[in-house]
Amino acid sequence: MSCLPSRLYAIADPAQTGGRPLASVIDAMLAGGVTVLQLRVKDRPADEFLRLALAARERTSRQGCLFIVNDRVDIALAARADGVHLGQEDLPLEAARPLVGDKLIGVSTHSPEQAEEAERGGADYVGFGPMFPTRTKETGYASRGLSMLESVRRRVRIPIVAIGGVTADNAAQTWNRGADAAAMISHLTRGEDVTARVRQILDP
Amino acid sequence: MSCLPSRLYAIADPAQTGGRPLASVIDAMLAGGVTVLQLRVKDRPADEFLRLALAARERTSRQGCLFIVNDRVDIALAARADGVHLGQEDLPLEAARPLVGDKLIGVSTHSPEQAEEAERGGADYVGFGPMFPTRTKETGYASRGLSMLESVRRRVRIPIVAIGGVTADNAAQTWNRGADAAAMISHLTRGEDVTARVRQILDP
Repeated sequence: MSCLPSRLYAIADPAQTGGRPLASVIDAMLAGGVTVLQLRVKDRPADEFLRLALAARERTSRQGCLFIVNDRVDIALAARADGVHLGQEDLPLEAARPLVGDKLIGVSTHSPEQAEEAERGGADYVGFGPMFPTRTKETGYASRGLSMLESVRRRVRIPIVAIGGVTADNAAQTWNRGADAAAMISHLTRGEDVTARVRQILDP
Repeated sequence: MSCLPSRLYAIADPAQTGGRPLASVIDAMLAGGVTVLQLRVKDRPADEFLRLALAARERTSRQGCLFIVNDRVDIALAARADGVHLGQEDLPLEAARPLVGDKLIGVSTHSPEQAEEAERGGADYVGFGPMFPTRTKETGYASRGLSMLESVRRRVRIPIVAIGGVTADNAAQTWNRGADAAAMISHLTRGEDVTARVRQILDP
């Protein structure tokens, strides 16, 4: 069984709430049925990141939602998250694993080779992308597309989270071509009703 | 006995090496007799910070020098540092302590009240400053001066590291007015001979 209990991997980011408080975005995601939530916080002091993580941990725990912290192993540990998600410039997997024990570790990858390396290194899942053109995040990578996703699928057994430009309209394509889950940030928060958007994706 | 084995608390920063490789600065510090060394890395990816920390750990271990990592608890743990130094916007002490166990935790403080709070929270030592006007770091704080250092000394029992604008010329003033150690970065690396500068401070 996949370590990821949902086809939607929701990301909450205080810089992408559409003007709402982060807590209310998380509540709206949970109300829509999100069961995997990552907190992504960039360019804020660690004490603030931790406060947001503790609040997200409390909310996700109440709903039995898996909670993953982006980038920072120490904040994931301090907030008792279920896992940490590491980019290619974060702590490397082999340094993070002894610190987190059997918590989940996800790794951002941008090629089949990186995905294989993450699996060999003991990652519990990989993010793969950017799938489609996106304005959310300046990744410095061209979009990877569905064929490369299929290539990743052939090469790793661990769950794949397709990320980057994924929306309600194209999520099914990623699932059909090998992704276990589709990650979404701005697509969930850009509209009026976050809960309805989540429901639309989970039960199209 | 103080947890700090020296009156000099040397800080190595890859952005302040006077053009030298960081490793050679650390070697020169150790050759001069440094027995407490902090690695401070700002605005670099975590994987690079960890690489620098692992190299510093190896060098300091060989000389029996205490090694402290600035800001990042996870990097301190991954590099098997002897401690971590936390600023007022880093992970708070109560979040860091369970993660680091009995490793040292130092906390940057800028007032007697912050120093007392750090001691109450279980800090092993406090940094206090900026002592004197400095160009090294934009702290956003006016220099604290020797009278306030004395005030901190009266209010905490744990070691005090005076930091900010401390040089070979004024270090003795900080020791005489209550600091257990004086922290120096650029003063050590600005001149030609880092080793000689260290010796001059340790054995004036």
